[in-house]
Amino acid sequence: MMSISKAMCRSRLLQIFLAMGSAFAFADTPVEMVVEGDYVLTMDSDHRVIANGAVAISDGKVVAVGPADDILAKYQPRERVSGKGKVVLPGLINGHAHSAMTLLRGIADDLSIYEWLNEYIFPAEVRFVDPEFVRIGTQLACWEMIRGGTTTFVDMYYHPDVIAEVVQECGMRALISATVIDQKSPDAESADDSLAKAIEFVRRWQNKAPRITPIFGPHANYTLNVEQLKATRKAAQALNATISIHMAESPYEVEYSQEKYGTGSVSMFESIGFFEGPTIAAHMVWPNDDEIRILAAGNVGVVYNPTSNMKTAAGIAPIPEMREAGVAVGIGTDGAASNNDLDMWEEMRLGALLQKVNAMDPELLAAAEVLRMATIEGAQAIGLADVTGSLEPGKQADLIQVDFTDAHHVPTYDVISHLVYVTDEQDVTTVIVEGKMLMRDRVLLTLDTEQIRHDAETLAAKIRKELSP
Amino acid sequence: MMSISKAMCRSRLLQIFLAMGSAFAFADTPVEMVVEGDYVLTMDSDHRVIANGAVAISDGKVVAVGPADDILAKYQPRERVSGKGKVVLPGLINGHAHSAMTLLRGIADDLSIYEWLNEYIFPAEVRFVDPEFVRIGTQLACWEMIRGGTTTFVDMYYHPDVIAEVVQECGMRALISATVIDQKSPDAESADDSLAKAIEFVRRWQNKAPRITPIFGPHANYTLNVEQLKATRKAAQALNATISIHMAESPYEVEYSQEKYGTGSVSMFESIGFFEGPTIAAHMVWPNDDEIRILAAGNVGVVYNPTSNMKTAAGIAPIPEMREAGVAVGIGTDGAASNNDLDMWEEMRLGALLQKVNAMDPELLAAAEVLRMATIEGAQAIGLADVTGSLEPGKQADLIQVDFTDAHHVPTYDVISHLVYVTDEQDVTTVIVEGKMLMRDRVLLTLDTEQIRHDAETLAAKIRKELSP
Repeated sequence: MMSISKAMCRSRLLQIFLAMGSAFAFADTPVEMVVEGDYVLTMDSDHRVIANGAVAISDGKVVAVGPADDILAKYQPRERVSGKGKVVLPGLINGHAHSAMTLLRGIADDLSIYEWLNEYIFPAEVRFVDPEFVRIGTQLACWEMIRGGTTTFVDMYYHPDVIAEVVQECGMRALISATVIDQKSPDAESADDSLAKAIEFVRRWQNKAPRITPIFGPHANYTLNVEQLKATRKAAQALNATISIHMAESPYEVEYSQEKYGTGSVSMFESIGFFEGPTIAAHMVWPNDDEIRILAAGNVGVVYNPTSNMKTAAGIAPIPEMREAGVAVGIGTDGAASNNDLDMWEEMRLGALLQKVNAMDPELLAAAEVLRMATIEGAQAIGLADVTGSLEPGKQADLIQVDFTDAHHVPTYDVISHLVYVTDEQDVTTVIVEGKMLMRDRVLLTLDTEQIRHDAETLAAKIRKELSP
Repeated sequence: MMSISKAMCRSRLLQIFLAMGSAFAFADTPVEMVVEGDYVLTMDSDHRVIANGAVAISDGKVVAVGPADDILAKYQPRERVSGKGKVVLPGLINGHAHSAMTLLRGIADDLSIYEWLNEYIFPAEVRFVDPEFVRIGTQLACWEMIRGGTTTFVDMYYHPDVIAEVVQECGMRALISATVIDQKSPDAESADDSLAKAIEFVRRWQNKAPRITPIFGPHANYTLNVEQLKATRKAAQALNATISIHMAESPYEVEYSQEKYGTGSVSMFESIGFFEGPTIAAHMVWPNDDEIRILAAGNVGVVYNPTSNMKTAAGIAPIPEMREAGVAVGIGTDGAASNNDLDMWEEMRLGALLQKVNAMDPELLAAAEVLRMATIEGAQAIGLADVTGSLEPGKQADLIQVDFTDAHHVPTYDVISHLVYVTDEQDVTTVIVEGKMLMRDRVLLTLDTEQIRHDAETLAAKIRKELSP
């Protein structure tokens, strides 16, 4: 019979052997990268939050997510990204933007949406927006979005080929809408012209670049007539493409629809068969109860734009009611000219706070809910839930690290509460899309920020000069 | 007769001589510091915004404000703070805070104010709040406020001597309220006890340290009875001290007042003579029209707390109506446990946006208005307008520099719009109070941030452990 101490000793040796085994013998699966975090938020259906977690990445995809010890015991990474003081989560999804409008931010504020649009923005756009404007403005937007932790965005603007080129170069993921609009625009003479160009754009970029999804962007029901809206849906269906559109944004739009069609915006769209294909409806401030059911039945993804809706006084979207009815709701910044930045953290925070005070119910849209809307539910709303929005094996590796050591994050009782009610863009340190590092230690790797700042200021100086009396 | 070229030559020489004169011969007034900016916002009664401006500082005071060329022609600074890419403005004034509650941020969220207060905050405070808690929590709050550009704050918490010591050490300016409350609190056994201690505190700190103003902080009309409120006002009058109080914050409070006194909160306070001395009323969400007139007549300063009011679903304060009636309205963060940070930029932004959407009027509370509320009007609301809140000769030199070169500020058409709708705490690079540099190039000079982080995390770990089942 062995003495107790001998048995303990053997047992201890066995433990050490096993530990060595897991640390060395089995860490034989090479991966490109392991990203660690004090906490890893998967945003998967189990809402897993893993303390001292890690994500293994290869071929642009998530290979495994789990406790860092387990991941590092199994996988041998070429690059290991430390997670000390950091939280890892899926990259944020900006469901509605007009990226190049960064170049017009602050040009006109504190105005109604129609005065702002018709007297300032549309005229300035026709005058100044050309491919060079779109290139610089989109680069500036991508710089801002990457530095703030956004990895995917839905864009709607002019010269979409230029937008696609910038996205391709900077490494983000995007749905890019070619604008269809019944007025002279920066890239078309008429509705027919803009639709023809949109069809060409979608054809050109479909299945061309995995991070880019070309879609159609009919502007709204007050800038296109029914025939033009139907023609756009028909073209989208022929190409199996999604549509992104402004819908039920303001009382003005709903009144316009009532007067012209005798029904609200959403009902009008339904009546013309507009929802017979994937639709991303931005704003959606004024659906009535019947229309909320139409959205749910039609599988329409909605994008909540709280800052823009507040700034233009468009109204307060019935977000809890839509989600309750089964509508997937994402979050967007809208263009920087009505926001005036592209900060998704602010949208989450503001979006939650606005619903609480509006319903006088502090429990509404809790932090965890709004964080889902900015990640996996946002991916559902824009039709990319199989690709991005959560950290699960097989999905694209679109993720970020957020530093939690600056004053406002100290101390940390609840990671999710901090992400929604505290985190700022500047806390994001690392941004990875499709397994590729776009920002490391707050340094952007795919964009020349000095050059963009110079180009943007030069272009803005020209605009300022021409607009001054 | 001189030839034209000779005359031109003489004239040119004269110009050069004069320029030399202004640059060298007259720059003979020594000052401690000149702070420059691409733009200097004075926030004075003329709303002056000076392009390529500068502020000369000596003996803790503003000596002169003007174009940088003029200032540097006249004053010889010991230290010259470059303003390239930066905007200079008065330091922000946080009109209502419970600083040490930074240590409880995120401990309970998405709850009604009374559930939050009675079931989580009050019990946690009685259990954990001691002088050490207050020291660390206030240090953490001062770190966060300085890094975000706040130079003055109105605090209301327990162990006010400790708060005063921290403020004294870190160099900020503060009105510090000793809490008076009719329940067992972290520093008193009863209302009488808390009032007696408050009187001692105010006596101890009056005229002791120029940056510190000791005041009385009766908690609210639902935590003190009429006799206790009257006794507090009497004590404040005897010492010529200001009172800071929560007032008309929530429907609950107004209903309570209606039931108990047959009248709304503000009317009840007026009926007991409470406004016969300087009063800072925080929140003020539910005054009726008559009560707004009472506030204006009583010279009551109001502090708007938009994030907290939204998060606790307290309601939307009638800010435009109060300002229209002549009430000075400042802005505050409230405690970090109901916010969950101390970010005054967010308060400005959110405060403006909330009023716009509430009234469905995008012109309401324009950017320039809300910036005044966070500076000079905030100073008026708390009775410090002669001391701080604008950059004018003779006032204390409380000012900040904000960097405008990061993505979200590019390009800049309108400085004030950017400050309100874009700027984040992390853009603040320089903070000066009473002419003394508290933060230079984002490095805090008067607080040991590593030590504070360590102390706060250690204390939070203890709290987390004791609270876990």
